Amino acid sequence: MNGAQRLVEALVASGVDTCFTNPGTSEMHVVAALDRVDGMRCVLGLFEGVVTGAADGYFRIADRPAATLLHLGPGLANGLANLHNAKKARSGIVNLVGDHASHHLALNAPLSSDVAAIARPMSDWVRTAASSQSLAADAVCAVEAARTAPGRIATLILPADTAWGPAGPAAVANAPAPRATVSAAAVDASAVALREPGPTALLLGGAGVRADALDLAGRIAAKTGCALISEYNSARIERGAGRVVAPRVPYVIDSAVAMLRGFRRIVLIGAVPPVGFFAYPGKPSELAPPGCEFTELAAVGDDIAGALRALADALGARALAPAHVAAFALPRLPDGAITLDGLAAVLAALIPDDAIVVDEAITSGRGFALPTQGSRPHDWLTSMGGSIGYGLPVAVGAALAAPARRVIALEGDGSAMYTLQALWTMARESLQVTVIVFANRAYRILRGEFDAVGAGAPGRRATDMLTLDRPALDWCALARGHGVESGRAADLGEFARQLRRGLAGDGPYLIELLL
Amino acid sequence: MNGAQRLVEALVASGVDTCFTNPGTSEMHVVAALDRVDGMRCVLGLFEGVVTGAADGYFRIADRPAATLLHLGPGLANGLANLHNAKKARSGIVNLVGDHASHHLALNAPLSSDVAAIARPMSDWVRTAASSQSLAADAVCAVEAARTAPGRIATLILPADTAWGPAGPAAVANAPAPRATVSAAAVDASAVALREPGPTALLLGGAGVRADALDLAGRIAAKTGCALISEYNSARIERGAGRVVAPRVPYVIDSAVAMLRGFRRIVLIGAVPPVGFFAYPGKPSELAPPGCEFTELAAVGDDIAGALRALADALGARALAPAHVAAFALPRLPDGAITLDGLAAVLAALIPDDAIVVDEAITSGRGFALPTQGSRPHDWLTSMGGSIGYGLPVAVGAALAAPARRVIALEGDGSAMYTLQALWTMARESLQVTVIVFANRAYRILRGEFDAVGAGAPGRRATDMLTLDRPALDWCALARGHGVESGRAADLGEFARQLRRGLAGDGPYLIELLL
Repeated sequence: MNGAQRLVEALVASGVDTCFTNPGTSEMHVVAALDRVDGMRCVLGLFEGVVTGAADGYFRIADRPAATLLHLGPGLANGLANLHNAKKARSGIVNLVGDHASHHLALNAPLSSDVAAIARPMSDWVRTAASSQSLAADAVCAVEAARTAPGRIATLILPADTAWGPAGPAAVANAPAPRATVSAAAVDASAVALREPGPTALLLGGAGVRADALDLAGRIAAKTGCALISEYNSARIERGAGRVVAPRVPYVIDSAVAMLRGFRRIVLIGAVPPVGFFAYPGKPSELAPPGCEFTELAAVGDDIAGALRALADALGARALAPAHVAAFALPRLPDGAITLDGLAAVLAALIPDDAIVVDEAITSGRGFALPTQGSRPHDWLTSMGGSIGYGLPVAVGAALAAPARRVIALEGDGSAMYTLQALWTMARESLQVTVIVFANRAYRILRGEFDAVGAGAPGRRATDMLTLDRPALDWCALARGHGVESGRAADLGEFARQLRRGLAGDGPYLIELLL
Repeated sequence: MNGAQRLVEALVASGVDTCFTNPGTSEMHVVAALDRVDGMRCVLGLFEGVVTGAADGYFRIADRPAATLLHLGPGLANGLANLHNAKKARSGIVNLVGDHASHHLALNAPLSSDVAAIARPMSDWVRTAASSQSLAADAVCAVEAARTAPGRIATLILPADTAWGPAGPAAVANAPAPRATVSAAAVDASAVALREPGPTALLLGGAGVRADALDLAGRIAAKTGCALISEYNSARIERGAGRVVAPRVPYVIDSAVAMLRGFRRIVLIGAVPPVGFFAYPGKPSELAPPGCEFTELAAVGDDIAGALRALADALGARALAPAHVAAFALPRLPDGAITLDGLAAVLAALIPDDAIVVDEAITSGRGFALPTQGSRPHDWLTSMGGSIGYGLPVAVGAALAAPARRVIALEGDGSAMYTLQALWTMARESLQVTVIVFANRAYRILRGEFDAVGAGAPGRRATDMLTLDRPALDWCALARGHGVESGRAADLGEFARQLRRGLAGDGPYLIELLL
């Protein structure tokens, strides 16, 4: 038995049973080991951003890490942007990155690079395996690192000779440690803040926007009258009919400042004081009003539901009915010309029960939160790191983590282009993902940003850098090219028909919305 | 005037007049400056690997750097793999990477990352601009770094406030320094080596495989009887009828060892002692025979043609007719079923005069060198860094650097998928690129590598990781989706017709070869 087999064995024994791969020569022994060790599901991506993004989506839904298999420094580099997003989403991932055999590395062959240096900026844990004998132990450390609450990026670099050399002892990861209980002092301080006069908000992030935590927050709101808000982005917010609503802090600085202006106190629950996505000349980067007092109940890695339970108990709120519960309310299906409100209504009416919505619609999707509040219960995933190209890969991983659930990916045409190869993996794995491409044929957000940074009106050259209309992308052809069925909608009635068709199918379906 | 305008002004004044872009909010002032400063051609890529690869291709043909404009750490990360290739090709590139405004960076906004740390592994020079006042001076340093012979990757990080703050003084780069003349001792030592008995080879790399240098090498060969060989990969080898032939060191270890076995002495000219692309259990990494004596005439950054001239003079070879000149010889156009030899013959017959061939055909293209030796004169570009996804972007940059020349991109279907978004830029810019996709529906090279590393026969799971046939990619649909015309060829006659059509057109054309 060689090191690679022992490695795969250790991963499977430690509960890592899904591996997203884009391997090369230096990983061939690991690929061979996948045949020899049972229990690892392997999913090929045709670009590494698909691989790492899928691992992010997998963790968000499965709440446990998948592995990736990447080829040397450049292969890892292609996966970095979605590792950035995963790290900011605090997803746990075990990256396996091949490298040249130790004796080969000194020779500066074409693919030589400093893999550890490439890994570090987007990893929480990096190790280069020293010997084939230690691979199981190394894998176990990587899994334990990845499972450190709430989740971490662990990158294990495998010189080829550690994979092909003789195996050392087997190993298995310890069970994940329970999340840390928050201190009584933190609970007391939060209770005090909530009893003070003046408008107070709970700002929820991380596990604080799962249904159980939101329910407790709703009870606290019922008792104290506090507002509930969530961070601009959430790795996974559980929402829809019957769930407690915590509106997002808006993206646009002025809107965010307006939302937060009234609060004297904000209790942080798996969240941090809100800051702008970008800086703009003459606008604040910190969004809460000056003098606003922050009290942290729970950090993002703590036992957030437990903390909310303790706080609810301290406030005598536990037995109350939660406030801010969304009533079940589906809009009538609209017809006629496409408007963003109309699209939101179609989506709101048709989101299936327990669906997973991956939102990378950028400008087109900004108004979708309110209309979908009373839709059938669903999870809504947004990009935590802001690097575009996260959506299609995350949809792949989410669908693999929950094969019984329907996934809807909302994609701007600009953002979908970064990792469109994910469509092929959806087809290969027959994933029940319906992709909706909002084809406005522009980096529409950047038109707004151009104005927001005070750059004036874009001229010809700048406009060329912000538009995708020459030539127009044909998303139905792109889908077909990747083996995915598709349809086009130029009005709301057709969109509803297409969406129903996508949601009824056995595999992926792409809808190109002509905006 | 703001810093961004001064920056663009300095680039244009310093001879950098092409910028490949994929900007975001933090680069909006630079985009605005592109409108306000004349003389910069801006080319949009829909993925950053297209942007950096295009800059690589541009340098290889123009012999001067282009700029790139990238969005923060993740945008740079998406461009790293092709920066790796460009760095190994010793292409000069000026990367401009936006970052958050200095005051925003401390707040850990979603897109915050350590941009300099991401840049370093694939850059020769990295600087974070300290102030809007210094941007022109910073740009000048970046240009001078990028132009350091033979070419370097220079990355200038621009916090947004340095772009929008007030401009400092204007600046312009010094003219590039001439390449270093090699020492008389190096010329003498090389002449001595060539006069010794026993088989000797000149191993040529960098500018040593341009036509003028090859011509001198051919004269030296005529005088001394030495062999001429070139490195496995070359950023740009000038070849075809009338040019001196220097066969490549083969990729496969056994073949490379067999080629080099006979040499007692190798004179290095812009080249290094040959090493294997990968390491394999039980095979050598260093490919020359034990005891082979290496003598360096010129390093890759030296004045290589000058060194060869001096060496030819020292040997009394200058006035001789060069040996190893390829005769003009076009194969008859074959017909019938597709074979790799048949494809090579079609290509060899139809390569237009002064064409640029970008070769990322991986396994399918390995046998193309000999058949195309007597084709019309052309440049042949290969990947120096080995990271796949280099071909289509390099073709974009090459076509922009030489609008009058025809570009042929040979692509494996696996490798083309990494940066297929380059097709859209070809369409937008009406580039005369004919893309030939060798659709074998597999990572065919990895089947060979699986065997070569001794991993045995691939089982079901491993085979799934090495094949692209479920579903089959439809390259004509992918081309159409990006706005590129296309055709399919299932026999050699149709391939010839399609290739003629592509080479006669005004814009890009893609041919899917069904292997």
